[in-house]
Amino acid sequence: MIEATGITGALLIGSREVTEGPAFRAVDPARGAEIEPAFVEAGPADVAEAAALAAQAFPFYRATAPAARAAFLDGIATEIEALGDALIERAARETGLPAARLQGERARTCGQLRLFASWIRDGGADEPRLDSPLPERTPLPRADLRLRHIGIGPVAVFGASNFPLAFSVAGGDTASALAAGCPVIVKGHPAHPGTSELVGRAIRAAMAKAGLPEGVFSLLTGTSHELGGALVGDPRVAAVGFTGSRAGGLALCRIAAARPVPIPVYAEMSSINPVFLLPAALESRAEALAAGFVGSLTLGAGQFCTNPGLVIAIEGEGLARFLAGAGAAVEAAPAATMLTPGIAGAYGKGVAALAEAGATEIARGGAETGPNACRPALFVAEAASFLAEPALSHEVFGASSLVIRCRDAAEMVQVARAVEGQLTATLHLDVADHPLAAQLLPVLEEKAGRILANGWPTGVEVCHAMVHGGPFPATSDPRSTSVGTLAIRRFLRPVCYQDLPEALLPAAVKGGNPLRLPRLLDGKMIAATETEAEK
Amino acid sequence: MIEATGITGALLIGSREVTEGPAFRAVDPARGAEIEPAFVEAGPADVAEAAALAAQAFPFYRATAPAARAAFLDGIATEIEALGDALIERAARETGLPAARLQGERARTCGQLRLFASWIRDGGADEPRLDSPLPERTPLPRADLRLRHIGIGPVAVFGASNFPLAFSVAGGDTASALAAGCPVIVKGHPAHPGTSELVGRAIRAAMAKAGLPEGVFSLLTGTSHELGGALVGDPRVAAVGFTGSRAGGLALCRIAAARPVPIPVYAEMSSINPVFLLPAALESRAEALAAGFVGSLTLGAGQFCTNPGLVIAIEGEGLARFLAGAGAAVEAAPAATMLTPGIAGAYGKGVAALAEAGATEIARGGAETGPNACRPALFVAEAASFLAEPALSHEVFGASSLVIRCRDAAEMVQVARAVEGQLTATLHLDVADHPLAAQLLPVLEEKAGRILANGWPTGVEVCHAMVHGGPFPATSDPRSTSVGTLAIRRFLRPVCYQDLPEALLPAAVKGGNPLRLPRLLDGKMIAATETEAEK
Repeated sequence: MIEATGITGALLIGSREVTEGPAFRAVDPARGAEIEPAFVEAGPADVAEAAALAAQAFPFYRATAPAARAAFLDGIATEIEALGDALIERAARETGLPAARLQGERARTCGQLRLFASWIRDGGADEPRLDSPLPERTPLPRADLRLRHIGIGPVAVFGASNFPLAFSVAGGDTASALAAGCPVIVKGHPAHPGTSELVGRAIRAAMAKAGLPEGVFSLLTGTSHELGGALVGDPRVAAVGFTGSRAGGLALCRIAAARPVPIPVYAEMSSINPVFLLPAALESRAEALAAGFVGSLTLGAGQFCTNPGLVIAIEGEGLARFLAGAGAAVEAAPAATMLTPGIAGAYGKGVAALAEAGATEIARGGAETGPNACRPALFVAEAASFLAEPALSHEVFGASSLVIRCRDAAEMVQVARAVEGQLTATLHLDVADHPLAAQLLPVLEEKAGRILANGWPTGVEVCHAMVHGGPFPATSDPRSTSVGTLAIRRFLRPVCYQDLPEALLPAAVKGGNPLRLPRLLDGKMIAATETEAEK
Repeated sequence: MIEATGITGALLIGSREVTEGPAFRAVDPARGAEIEPAFVEAGPADVAEAAALAAQAFPFYRATAPAARAAFLDGIATEIEALGDALIERAARETGLPAARLQGERARTCGQLRLFASWIRDGGADEPRLDSPLPERTPLPRADLRLRHIGIGPVAVFGASNFPLAFSVAGGDTASALAAGCPVIVKGHPAHPGTSELVGRAIRAAMAKAGLPEGVFSLLTGTSHELGGALVGDPRVAAVGFTGSRAGGLALCRIAAARPVPIPVYAEMSSINPVFLLPAALESRAEALAAGFVGSLTLGAGQFCTNPGLVIAIEGEGLARFLAGAGAAVEAAPAATMLTPGIAGAYGKGVAALAEAGATEIARGGAETGPNACRPALFVAEAASFLAEPALSHEVFGASSLVIRCRDAAEMVQVARAVEGQLTATLHLDVADHPLAAQLLPVLEEKAGRILANGWPTGVEVCHAMVHGGPFPATSDPRSTSVGTLAIRRFLRPVCYQDLPEALLPAAVKGGNPLRLPRLLDGKMIAATETEAEK
């Protein structure tokens, strides 16, 4: 079955299309009804075929010049844009997300591909380092040593449900891996298989134009846990990128660690993104903070990894004004369709669990308007209860937040110490709050990947200085970020060449610097434009 | 009991000395006899105390300026040198290694500390990145984003038996972790506890002079597996550095992965360091290659991670000459004392296992001269046997090597494809060999961390471009190196600051660049000496 949009329901394994097999359908969460066409459920044989093709393509792909990979990434962005409204319409049907949000997400996705392209063109993936030979050194001469980074191998990417474009088939993990020189096998999220197929075909088109071998990209879709397990367990897969639930991420980590050859898993899992309202800021602008907070909380039905799920403040008149304002705004907030029936069900359970764990509901948003609607919810609890009850720290994916009332600044610091690892931590502060902020900062640096002041954690800039990562359970690997150019480093490994003849050296470390890359020469960074003291 | 050298047998837990408890003694492997004094066996309570002190010291230590940490590393080198001959004498007795080798190792250890000091002084640990705010950008402004790297947390370091100085208490892992801003708890290798204590006291002296909190360094010694397990399992330990056996490294990886909060383990485990003798080089200098090979093989009784345990060549007259030369040199090589009775016993078993697996012994070095002597051994096997029999790939720690005879170049490439992950791979080649080398290179890049031409893998330069690492099982994490300045990155994680007021920003990312670090500004590297377009 072929729709006008070009969605066939096929698996895209290299250049082959698999159209036969068990089937599933996407669900329109706003209507609670299935959408055509049927999609093939990938099985173990499909995983093996995609992995074999990826392994076969890897030596060629990783050896492409940075400029060639950059052109490929640019080409993917062009092809995604060429999909036009068909992509937005299909994504909106499959996710319940509004078109404007999806258009913004498409811009971010394409911008990300182009930023990574320019970064690797400038040498950001190779990071070459050269140490000059010292033939006269005593007691032993020093050899000629040259280091560059190469792709780690085929990468399995798990599409996220909540970013059908920016963290799915051609999202951050795929862009990082392709930039690093690694073939990618995407396990598309079953909530948006049509969106996945459209983007997968865009990648294919860019691959064909770039003349790359078919194994550089495959797209497998399916609903079973076994599919993901087979992919992470395949001996040809060298690393994994995942965004999703804590249980799902941990399951993949266990599979990866138990392999005969263990591999790294970059799983982004769970974060409640604490927001600290410091006393002077709260006193001076409680109402504005309440409005900003509820705006961030309810954005996209609260379905962001960086959703502010925890607010910490010291009791008093300022907090009372904040709660009144936030409560009223939450009451006034409409219900919004969630991504899937499963997510909507989990949201309901999560909200109920907060109440059962002792939090007091102080506001609830508009009555449900559809089969999978999220009603925003606001809870409050005393700091002492929070410190005693781990269930109050559990992420509720959706527009629910818990305000923690502290007796004093010392208790606020205690709460900061008690939270688990986070993607973000936020401080709202005035100059008078700086001493308390200075106490909180070192604690939060050890808890979170990104620390914000006077802003809201939703909205993650794609740039060089971004960290979208953080200590466990925010991610499985705090040494990295999944957003921004630093994300490419996750899929690289260093290789050193000792006394290799010039004719055999890879271009990134050759004499004369033919690729014009910035290189670290004897410990000093030499820009591409400078004359390198040649060896 | 206190020796004249200052060795007491105590555990050094922060500033406390633990002198009571179950005891063990070092063994002089050359005599097969125990050496005084007795050393305390660390237990779970000692681990907990050291970990608590490390966690307490971490916020202070990680916040020290790079220059302060650099001065501390320089101070450790100075204190180690001040130990004088007492250190060399004790290390020689505990390891059976000759004084000259240990003097060289001490120079390397101190040079490594000083190189790391200069590297972090120049900003190599912080790696700051700044993206300028774009308040006018549409549809959304860009915030002010600044990234730096901070220490990951307290690091557990397992001393290696074969480098009692350079990979032990103040060795590469300790130097990397301290440079990164991480407190260190060393589990000293039980084969050289006196050497460990002397170096531990040197670190303590440098700490006192630097005014650092006691928890920055502790030294635990002991012989039990439980000690290492308790250390890796302690919730306050954030990362692990290990050099040792494959079984030991894998056990630690399993413990780390099973923790409620999993942590990274950098285990360097097993490598046979294949050396490819290409036809023209073999033809032109078989005898010189044989001499160089046996020199590298028997160096330090073959007890190097980079020992050439596998030689691959194509059958013919050149190989016959090489085997004749190498065989004669091995026959003429004296036996040498190994590090421990356990290692000597394992060497004997490993050599026997090679023979049982079908390798033909063609030469054996001088008769045993002591209780723990290593007799060099040379084996040969056909490539077809090697490809069929995994046991022929097992590392034999010591001066044993296996020559693989290939029918042709294609079979040589097949052998290259079949080897496991390695620390090094070596090519001996002439210009006429370049086409075959060009075929082997991409295969070897995926197998090894370092590729050498016309040299021998033993001898690892400490510099910026070194990679001492490689795919599994050479290490548990191919994304890193344990030698050279890049090793510091293993113990860092990035943190991003969004719109943080200038007054609260850490110095590494402050306006005006007060630490004079090279920084990536809007994607361009700005040297410390350049004027940064201020924000």
